[in-house]
Amino acid sequence: MKLNHDMKILIVGLGLLGGSYAMSLTKQGYHVKAITRSHASVEYALDEGLVEYATNEVEESVVSEADLVVFALYPHVFKEWVEEYQKFFKSGAIITDVTGVKSCIVYDIQNILRNDVEFIAAHPMAGRERSGVQNSDDSIFRGANYVVVPTEKNTSDAIELCRNLGEILGFARISELSPEEHDKIIAFVSQLTHCIAIALMTCQTTPHLEEYTGDSFRDLTRIARLNDDMWSELFLLNRDALINEMNLFEGELDRLKSLLLAGDREGLREMMRYSTSRRAIFDKPET
Amino acid sequence: MKLNHDMKILIVGLGLLGGSYAMSLTKQGYHVKAITRSHASVEYALDEGLVEYATNEVEESVVSEADLVVFALYPHVFKEWVEEYQKFFKSGAIITDVTGVKSCIVYDIQNILRNDVEFIAAHPMAGRERSGVQNSDDSIFRGANYVVVPTEKNTSDAIELCRNLGEILGFARISELSPEEHDKIIAFVSQLTHCIAIALMTCQTTPHLEEYTGDSFRDLTRIARLNDDMWSELFLLNRDALINEMNLFEGELDRLKSLLLAGDREGLREMMRYSTSRRAIFDKPET
Repeated sequence: MKLNHDMKILIVGLGLLGGSYAMSLTKQGYHVKAITRSHASVEYALDEGLVEYATNEVEESVVSEADLVVFALYPHVFKEWVEEYQKFFKSGAIITDVTGVKSCIVYDIQNILRNDVEFIAAHPMAGRERSGVQNSDDSIFRGANYVVVPTEKNTSDAIELCRNLGEILGFARISELSPEEHDKIIAFVSQLTHCIAIALMTCQTTPHLEEYTGDSFRDLTRIARLNDDMWSELFLLNRDALINEMNLFEGELDRLKSLLLAGDREGLREMMRYSTSRRAIFDKPET
Repeated sequence: MKLNHDMKILIVGLGLLGGSYAMSLTKQGYHVKAITRSHASVEYALDEGLVEYATNEVEESVVSEADLVVFALYPHVFKEWVEEYQKFFKSGAIITDVTGVKSCIVYDIQNILRNDVEFIAAHPMAGRERSGVQNSDDSIFRGANYVVVPTEKNTSDAIELCRNLGEILGFARISELSPEEHDKIIAFVSQLTHCIAIALMTCQTTPHLEEYTGDSFRDLTRIARLNDDMWSELFLLNRDALINEMNLFEGELDRLKSLLLAGDREGLREMMRYSTSRRAIFDKPET
């Protein structure tokens, strides 16, 4: 099953990601409506033409006509929403999400969901250091990765539709992981990196430090500016995996420290050469 | 004392930084010559018009006419060069450098140097992940920081000339630090960040990890691609300061881990809010 221009798409939650989904899909001629809590976000989305309709109320008519519903909410809000309003879903509707953690949410949602509606989870690996619909930007998907997170309950039709959504949004690479694999990898590539950026910001209070920084420091701490409400929730929902990755990382940092203490230049160079060669695979694909 | 267009400038060592200095100064009409080891670098610099003259030999006539000599060499090569060839310096010449560590080199050079020549150290906080004169790019200085590192042996004339060189190259902020302050700060903002990037690259070998990464991971590891010969030398020359910063950083990472383990969401949010507010001061000045 592929997305087509007759389908009605509903986005629930107009933040940075919800807004950027809406921007991209509307530009490409799809029918997009939105439900979001804040009046300012509704106004902004309508003024900017991100959607053809937006509302602060969970209107039955808007939910019940949607063939595809994209949830861009905090995990706990997502669950509550589905519990309260799933009665409005059209039979046969597909729902998907953008949530940054999966094990703690995918099974729960699939278990509470009506049997005639299917939830296929996805994680668009894109963002910006500013949140909110006002910072929506469909270019954040270019060159980026998109992970579909199916379980054994998912049909191949829904998986195909979810992958197709990623293609239409312009992601460079689309892959599939189980919820558990996803959370382990995300703990490393996303949550650990945010922990590092935070720790770099809090471990030094030298005055005027900004006069002595180079691009490397700026790069490593760009994500130190973060939405504390969202990230504290994501960290705690994936706590064990994250702590495991923090321990692995500290182990490597300690290995580097031992090489330094031993004055082992060849050991340091070997570690640096491995780092250099491995880094090449992470370059963003040219777009 | 300010740089003027009658002065003869000599750059010793045409790598990324030496080449970018040459590019910027030549474009602005200064007389720039270069001495560098590799034939390919000499040819490249002449073909691209980065300098008016370049040679592989330490030619007495080239050294002895220079009013300002910029050393862009590895620390140990810099010392050896000065020992062997300082006899060629013009009386009254000013020499400066781009070396990334200072305490271990500034005093040594000042002690061995002839009394009629002055060494004023500087650290341009700019770079790229690719080394070599072929990657020269004078735009790397825009918005960047430049640190002059005087000792009590330096004259205000030489300090002024060195600051002026930074201004002409286009740096956004020019500041002064003692060699010891410089090395402590560099251990944090530059060397620790490189250690982190290396450890992120070496602590996980999950296959296909590149399919699941976002910009945050790419940002934190851009500098994981590094010149092992140069960086191992810089790390070891600043070992104590670097290990101290690694310990401070790990302490903060452990604090974050404790908050996670305790499920202390408010503590996590407080740390994130502090990180967010502090990060704002590190934005690159608009250019």
